[in-house]
Amino acid sequence: MSSIELIEAAADRLRGHVRETPVLTSPFLDDMAGRRVLVKPECLQHTGSFKFRGAWSAISALNPDQRQRGVIAYSSGNHAQGIAMAATKHGIASVIVMPSDAPQLKIDNTRALGGEVVLYDRSSESREEIGEALAAERGLTLIRPYDEPQVIAGQGTVGLELARQVEAFGVEKADVLVCCGGGGLTSGIALALEKHAPGLRARPCEPDGFDDVKRSLASGQIQNNNASSGNICDAILTPQPGEITFPILQRLCGPGLSVSEDEALKAMALAFLRLKIVLEPGGAVALASALFRKDEIEGDDVVVVASGGNADPEVFAKALERLDA
Amino acid sequence: MSSIELIEAAADRLRGHVRETPVLTSPFLDDMAGRRVLVKPECLQHTGSFKFRGAWSAISALNPDQRQRGVIAYSSGNHAQGIAMAATKHGIASVIVMPSDAPQLKIDNTRALGGEVVLYDRSSESREEIGEALAAERGLTLIRPYDEPQVIAGQGTVGLELARQVEAFGVEKADVLVCCGGGGLTSGIALALEKHAPGLRARPCEPDGFDDVKRSLASGQIQNNNASSGNICDAILTPQPGEITFPILQRLCGPGLSVSEDEALKAMALAFLRLKIVLEPGGAVALASALFRKDEIEGDDVVVVASGGNADPEVFAKALERLDA
Repeated sequence: MSSIELIEAAADRLRGHVRETPVLTSPFLDDMAGRRVLVKPECLQHTGSFKFRGAWSAISALNPDQRQRGVIAYSSGNHAQGIAMAATKHGIASVIVMPSDAPQLKIDNTRALGGEVVLYDRSSESREEIGEALAAERGLTLIRPYDEPQVIAGQGTVGLELARQVEAFGVEKADVLVCCGGGGLTSGIALALEKHAPGLRARPCEPDGFDDVKRSLASGQIQNNNASSGNICDAILTPQPGEITFPILQRLCGPGLSVSEDEALKAMALAFLRLKIVLEPGGAVALASALFRKDEIEGDDVVVVASGGNADPEVFAKALERLDA
Repeated sequence: MSSIELIEAAADRLRGHVRETPVLTSPFLDDMAGRRVLVKPECLQHTGSFKFRGAWSAISALNPDQRQRGVIAYSSGNHAQGIAMAATKHGIASVIVMPSDAPQLKIDNTRALGGEVVLYDRSSESREEIGEALAAERGLTLIRPYDEPQVIAGQGTVGLELARQVEAFGVEKADVLVCCGGGGLTSGIALALEKHAPGLRARPCEPDGFDDVKRSLASGQIQNNNASSGNICDAILTPQPGEITFPILQRLCGPGLSVSEDEALKAMALAFLRLKIVLEPGGAVALASALFRKDEIEGDDVVVVASGGNADPEVFAKALERLDA
């Protein structure tokens, strides 16, 4: 099957199991951004992020024998929760390899959703090595967070929904800003838009200093980040674009955008105030780009994919303080 | 037209102007409540509360000559914002009479949405008298916040959506908990459910000490509250059930429920954590009732209408502190 056929098939498997998230708007955000802002809040998805889509897609695509032996994933948190819940709903076991510095909330949630959590040290160990060793040992199927066609297909269903939804708003041409880590969500959306809304163009959004996708797109070569942690946007800190995702991003996406930690926190506060949704820092960089990088965006409308809402309460309270400034 | 015909006609006028809000769930809330909890987040409605529905319904139902002269409303905040935005989108003027102790955010928002704000002292002045005098003087049409058939009809569209949505969850019988001030939302929903989902029963939820509807239903007579302010749930503090709404509530609703301020704040924190939505205290009393009054509720499922999200940041930060407890 072609990539777009994989996405359309994933949409069939996801139906009734995944929420169709709405599109939200606010005249206050439109004023700030200088154009109409259409926000798709994937924080309202099961487990608080779009990751549940890819998890459900990948697990439901396994053959029954393979699925029965269980799955394993490595993740900073949102993929973890998505896999744990999707596995539990399929009645199978899941092992999740998580960095020991992941937010406690995400670790707790992953366990509560039925996942067996294995912690590792982000600075000295390779999650890929740990994941592959455990998979071999216990007969588990490894489900990669982004470099996996069925995961990309699941995330691409966000693009299918968007193509239909923005049409109802009369939008034919716009940039679609997507919070981007390894590129699974961005590439899936880009593939869906290519067929179903060719006037829309996906653009990856990242934190300053962790803008590997932006730099890779600009140079035409995969670039690494200098560090692997040390930014509040923990959900989207990845070493480099994926091997499967990067060629898709390169073929279909517009230039990347990046924002500061302070801008991500301000976007969280404005999403609270104007949209009544909870975003985590990594899930707010696309909205921050729409609000604070408006000169780098084209058109009368901009679409924002707000990818996740698993914010620690302390971080959220810190974001709210930005409203006084 | 009968009440249900008014609601169905309002739904036609609202189509394309009002958001259909989704239904959200969380296994964590299900565990706490001891049954499945289906939450309809009207905080995601335009202006951050269900009030926009009633406002649009009432303004769109006016004859063109009358509408052109403008509208007036008195409100603690959410009806104000609903009327201001609906009036502005209809291209007409709106005057909003607001208590001087309303949250500053709601006053600012009402002005920014195009409303002319007139402040009054909640303890010494009658908003009804002020509203009616201004209406007569300037030829404005007064749109009451709940004792107005077209407003009730607009709020009732929440019930039409719910009837369809809970069917998809396989729910045929359940209590529907509704945050209740004057009873416009609760009575509208009750009327819609009577025809479209007769196994569902609306139940009003209020803050302790301002449980006039609960006491009125229990006694069969309209009861007053002792105070008119002094509770964090400012959006739903009304002197007594409405004259139009009360007979509807009496005919169709189950017993009322009431919760403490602390329970409303805890429900806000849990909505943040588990649903990724922003609720204000008055918009959280129905969820609080589902979580903390479970012995007073019947059935395997409970439906919660989370009515508004216009929380001041300081109040929200205070709610988040409840997560540590």
